[in-house]
Amino acid sequence: MIAWFNGELLPLRGVHISATDRGFLLGDGFFETMAAQETKVIRFDDHMARFRQSGEKLNLPIPYSNDEIFEAIQAVLVGCQLTKTRAAIRLTITRGSGPRGLMPPLEMSPQILVSASEAPDHFKAAVVKTVSVRRNEYSPTSRIKSLCYLDNIIAFEEAHDAGADEALMLNTTGHIAEGTISNIFFIKGHDLFTPQIEDGCLPGTMRQVILQKAEEIGLGVHEESLWPEITQKCDEAFLTNSLFRVRPICEIDGRIIPAQNWTDKLLAVVKAGEE
Amino acid sequence: MIAWFNGELLPLRGVHISATDRGFLLGDGFFETMAAQETKVIRFDDHMARFRQSGEKLNLPIPYSNDEIFEAIQAVLVGCQLTKTRAAIRLTITRGSGPRGLMPPLEMSPQILVSASEAPDHFKAAVVKTVSVRRNEYSPTSRIKSLCYLDNIIAFEEAHDAGADEALMLNTTGHIAEGTISNIFFIKGHDLFTPQIEDGCLPGTMRQVILQKAEEIGLGVHEESLWPEITQKCDEAFLTNSLFRVRPICEIDGRIIPAQNWTDKLLAVVKAGEE
Repeated sequence: MIAWFNGELLPLRGVHISATDRGFLLGDGFFETMAAQETKVIRFDDHMARFRQSGEKLNLPIPYSNDEIFEAIQAVLVGCQLTKTRAAIRLTITRGSGPRGLMPPLEMSPQILVSASEAPDHFKAAVVKTVSVRRNEYSPTSRIKSLCYLDNIIAFEEAHDAGADEALMLNTTGHIAEGTISNIFFIKGHDLFTPQIEDGCLPGTMRQVILQKAEEIGLGVHEESLWPEITQKCDEAFLTNSLFRVRPICEIDGRIIPAQNWTDKLLAVVKAGEE
Repeated sequence: MIAWFNGELLPLRGVHISATDRGFLLGDGFFETMAAQETKVIRFDDHMARFRQSGEKLNLPIPYSNDEIFEAIQAVLVGCQLTKTRAAIRLTITRGSGPRGLMPPLEMSPQILVSASEAPDHFKAAVVKTVSVRRNEYSPTSRIKSLCYLDNIIAFEEAHDAGADEALMLNTTGHIAEGTISNIFFIKGHDLFTPQIEDGCLPGTMRQVILQKAEEIGLGVHEESLWPEITQKCDEAFLTNSLFRVRPICEIDGRIIPAQNWTDKLLAVVKAGEE
């Protein structure tokens, strides 16, 4: 596999991060996961907008323009022979090396990496389990796709050990927050419900698309605090992220989800919008 | 500087982490910071006990014995010419490389690094500020010294921007948790107070030493939930970690801390115990 690292194309196995890099030592960095369909990067501008917002929040300068990053992605897709298929692209940035301690250095040397791998185009309906790990809605990093994913790893393993495909995390108040790699939505009648950002979920790019498309197809849209009971009362439920797009939930905490009519409609609309 | 990486001694600037390492990509790893005084590693057994507990909690096997890690530290101290001074040692482990996604691979290749740098032997009394970032007491990683330090970085910067030396983080319930690199203690009369582990603080090795020594010198010891009001009512307050040992707090949220009698006594007792 070919990667792009600080402006250079090289084999992924030849890319190495310094042992003094704060991304490695302290999780001081963030990333984006994007889908590409035959070299077309889906919602590139949305992803770059969030990427730059994260940089501003963390005072971490991004030393390349969107055009340069776009060109880097194209070169990686070509280098990885992923131009005729669906691909997952990961764009990662760290603050670079610094002296001991938490304080970021005044002179930063951010490290930036683009890598890619083949991605499936279809995902089977998911079994979801609510886990014990709680999402911290009081943390500024809950709104940033940071390198600090250990809570999510533990949450995912807990769900996986119970035979589920994705973990559902509540926040510390007990409201629904999100999955470990996805946002979550519920449908009841003609209404769509999803946790508000303030409840500790990442502002997913696909989440934003769904909120728009749902209105267009006639659903009432509710971004609000959701109690776990909704998992046992909803007609439909689904997960979203850039790779899934819309992934139906077939079972959540032992309850079979009865329908997926609106879910199928939303997936079709999103897919059509990507063409 | 010389480092020890997976069994080999080499220049720190020559140590590189793979771009597919989960420590770098996901913060999937943890570390210890230890002090060494003229090659004597202070409380090595305590640190290794916590290090191995973290490995068990995360199902991350540590591929070296305590003796091997001890020898590695000695070699690094010699290589860095830190044998005649006080040094800070960092022992870091990651889960190594894995395929895309959160699920840890079945076959793990943990990466383990020992590095060292000179450390001061004395720290001036600290100005502390309570910050907006909350510690997640519901997260299993709040009890692990994991690589996921971005919340702490943001908390530290908030305190630093306000002219403070350390940030105090509350937990999501509003109780006191800890500093970004330290545990916190308060004294009122003949009683010592510190947050209980369940409130989201790291089980610091120095914290444990203080709880023992405080009883020995005649303080009543209270590990319990603490409301922020204690910062405005205590007679004394101090921070602990392996490098500080005991660092007096001179000011917290604008209030001058009136005394440091017990604090000085505890520092002296801890120092004596290290000889």
